[in-house]
Amino acid sequence: MSDSNTPLISYSFSFKGTIRDLLRGSGQVMFQQSAWTGLLFIIGIFWGACYSGAPQVAWGALLGLIASTFAGWIIGEHVEDGRDGLWGFNGILVGCAFPTFLAPVPLMWLSLICCAMLTTWMRRGFNNVTAQFKINSLTFPFVALTWIFLLSARELTAIPLADMDTPALIVRIGGEIDWSFGSMIVYWLKGISQVFLINNAVTGVIFLIGLAVCNIWAAVYAAGSSALALAVALLFAADPADVTAGLFGFSPVLTGIALGTTFYKVNWKSALWTAAGVIATVFIQAGMDTLLVPWGMPTLTGPFCVATWLFLLPLYKLNPDVEPDMTDWKSKK
Amino acid sequence: MSDSNTPLISYSFSFKGTIRDLLRGSGQVMFQQSAWTGLLFIIGIFWGACYSGAPQVAWGALLGLIASTFAGWIIGEHVEDGRDGLWGFNGILVGCAFPTFLAPVPLMWLSLICCAMLTTWMRRGFNNVTAQFKINSLTFPFVALTWIFLLSARELTAIPLADMDTPALIVRIGGEIDWSFGSMIVYWLKGISQVFLINNAVTGVIFLIGLAVCNIWAAVYAAGSSALALAVALLFAADPADVTAGLFGFSPVLTGIALGTTFYKVNWKSALWTAAGVIATVFIQAGMDTLLVPWGMPTLTGPFCVATWLFLLPLYKLNPDVEPDMTDWKSKK
Amino acid sequence: MSDSNTPLISYSFSFKGTIRDLLRGSGQVMFQQSAWTGLLFIIGIFWGACYSGAPQVAWGALLGLIASTFAGWIIGEHVEDGRDGLWGFNGILVGCAFPTFLAPVPLMWLSLICCAMLTTWMRRGFNNVTAQFKINSLTFPFVALTWIFLLSARELTAIPLADMDTPALIVRIGGEIDWSFGSMIVYWLKGISQVFLINNAVTGVIFLIGLAVCNIWAAVYAAGSSALALAVALLFAADPADVTAGLFGFSPVLTGIALGTTFYKVNWKSALWTAAGVIATVFIQAGMDTLLVPWGMPTLTGPFCVATWLFLLPLYKLNPDVEPDMTDWKSKK
Repeated sequence: MSDSNTPLISYSFSFKGTIRDLLRGSGQVMFQQSAWTGLLFIIGIFWGACYSGAPQVAWGALLGLIASTFAGWIIGEHVEDGRDGLWGFNGILVGCAFPTFLAPVPLMWLSLICCAMLTTWMRRGFNNVTAQFKINSLTFPFVALTWIFLLSARELTAIPLADMDTPALIVRIGGEIDWSFGSMIVYWLKGISQVFLINNAVTGVIFLIGLAVCNIWAAVYAAGSSALALAVALLFAADPADVTAGLFGFSPVLTGIALGTTFYKVNWKSALWTAAGVIATVFIQAGMDTLLVPWGMPTLTGPFCVATWLFLLPLYKLNPDVEPDMTDWKSKK
Repeated sequence: MSDSNTPLISYSFSFKGTIRDLLRGSGQVMFQQSAWTGLLFIIGIFWGACYSGAPQVAWGALLGLIASTFAGWIIGEHVEDGRDGLWGFNGILVGCAFPTFLAPVPLMWLSLICCAMLTTWMRRGFNNVTAQFKINSLTFPFVALTWIFLLSARELTAIPLADMDTPALIVRIGGEIDWSFGSMIVYWLKGISQVFLINNAVTGVIFLIGLAVCNIWAAVYAAGSSALALAVALLFAADPADVTAGLFGFSPVLTGIALGTTFYKVNWKSALWTAAGVIATVFIQAGMDTLLVPWGMPTLTGPFCVATWLFLLPLYKLNPDVEPDMTDWKSKK
Repeated sequence: MSDSNTPLISYSFSFKGTIRDLLRGSGQVMFQQSAWTGLLFIIGIFWGACYSGAPQVAWGALLGLIASTFAGWIIGEHVEDGRDGLWGFNGILVGCAFPTFLAPVPLMWLSLICCAMLTTWMRRGFNNVTAQFKINSLTFPFVALTWIFLLSARELTAIPLADMDTPALIVRIGGEIDWSFGSMIVYWLKGISQVFLINNAVTGVIFLIGLAVCNIWAAVYAAGSSALALAVALLFAADPADVTAGLFGFSPVLTGIALGTTFYKVNWKSALWTAAGVIATVFIQAGMDTLLVPWGMPTLTGPFCVATWLFLLPLYKLNPDVEPDMTDWKSKK
């Protein structure tokens, strides 16, 4: 199968090449087209998942990554996207999310594979929509399809829920902030590890190293965005349970890398715009938390998508002599 | 009134011609531009509605069909759309839905007429939006406007509710599956009859005959899609009350006809793609059921629209030498 | 900072000119590019806010107006938009909404300023989206961003809520209609004053005078739309508490001015279409009320946006020899 623009060449397998493209798919979750970055991300996932006694999350990540990359090949998607790792980044996130929120029964694994494959195909369609507005669908294929599956699991009783909130009308506020410096560092690092739904400070360090290996600015913006988001969440007295688990950090981290280093080049104008975007992401995170309470559903990386779209859509020209093009990205290798 | 592209000729009435165009409007609910198909659909609706003691649903269908077709004429819509039955298919669905969910008071009938007329006008607008993405609005004018009216009926107390669920936070799971072969046949046929909100196996047979009269492949895909959807719903242990009433079948039936026989031509590649779309529709149905629980609202054909859009949007080329065009359809007569 | 289409000239300040542009921003809430109209609107806001003992709403309006206009200048938005008052109309509405629904603590004022500034920037992006469909984003930047902030305030505990409903599953119906002629006049005028979230009949009179000063048809359509909406709401027995507070009037008033006098020229065809749009707005208002009940959230001017978009999207040509263009408006001065 092929879409109308597919060139005649199709994806060719080789042990080394395919491993590299899979690892790039992991790296592209944070916009880095580097196999080393992707490898460190996967190491971080395994560390965090095993540490918290949920290794199925790490195995799910690998499975989702492979399934979605494989899906690009069978449908005959653009080969250059496969080489850039763009077939895999939604799938690895699906693979982290399913075993986190659903019980590890066989039908869950089957659904995980199907959903991961769908993200690659639906990404083409979502990009056809967003390209009309000169933006990219980002991780929204993962978000939308995972939302559908998680919602459906409440009526499809063959897949029991694992760690999903009870539907409610009131946002639960709980837990307590530990204001020591050490705890702040932990919250800050967990804000980075939660990009892959991992609640672990060491994983946060590994992710930062992974970013720095490919693009030092990406590491700087990730670190800065998590810190800024933490400060805003503390200033506005956000739900302590979420703050201490890093749940106010992961979307701002992605917004920061996307706006500050991927779609705009680094300069002081784009840095200011990125800071505004990161702060807005905190409010969008809290708003979307409230929005999803009646279904007990997680926001996933939805706040990142919404915030980044909002700050890309005006197409402001923040880099001199560069016409802004937000339809796709080429990250530095 | 006319839009900017209207040709000079306007719709001309004749007893035979207008009856034919009305019946085609009925047939177009399942993408068939055949008056005979439409006639059989209406016979099936009357059978099922009268059998269950709710003849107002059948009269509503006729009223909605006439009102929406009439609306195309007064606003000066494209004549060829009227001749193809495209003015009526949203209206007949409005006419089935209103007396099903709302009490048959005079203001309900007035609202039904207004809403049915609006579908024809709003279809032009919705198509202006979806055409940007090279897809069609399908039955979404019916879905969106009926949702608005049903939601509003909870605050506009002059229209009492008839058969709407109580708003809740938890999806109700109830009823029981009868695993006998005969019951499976009934569930399968009800999956087809529910396209027009009719819960009746005989109506399902009449609808299949109606499809076969115009296009044998449409009948095959409708039958196959309802069966596949039933199997998936049973495998994932979906809510028995919904499964036994055919509520997991009607959206997949429409997805199957749309993808497999209308927007793509029949071949093995498009058949596989359609099967994937039908399976996805089951999950989208369950997900949308959960989504609408806080308002006790029915999904209508929303899952069909979402699933079909998702599988059309990538614009994959599944038929050799045919550029995919999903903006509109010409069904075989 | 500048977007790619910005001319070289930038906004230049002068005491008289800037005051005029600020006042025009107030007038543009009802599509009037007149400083006198804007001045009368602000007088009406102060009258109503002080009368009900909530002067912070009026000060918020001024603050939001100034912040959003200022935001247009720092980002280097199109100067002609600033001169036309298009930088300010979303911001003044943000300024009315925040102190109405949130407690007047310092962080609320800070959020108000940030949100008002964001409306100007996001308006550029929203218009980039809606322009694809040949329509304008209207007051949706205000609606979307205020929804996000109000939702987030349920999790960001540093900003206490003031006058927001408790989340619920059932639409509350309360109060009683006083059917005397005098009360009907009051409900009708409050339908106009609620455009700026003011519940005061005198303010309604001042707003009508403000409209008449700039465009007598705008005043006629505002008055007529509020009356028609009141009649429909009473006919369908809408929630008395909302009817008596004018909450079924404000969105129809905006729909009436937008459709009847701004995007279409006044004639009998457009008047009929506008009447249909005004009636539809009442149902959309009731539907959106129900939709937002699980979060206890106000609809703001959301029903106006949805209704006006629905009636603009078909791009029907209702004025002879005029190609419809709904992407922007130039109001008569």
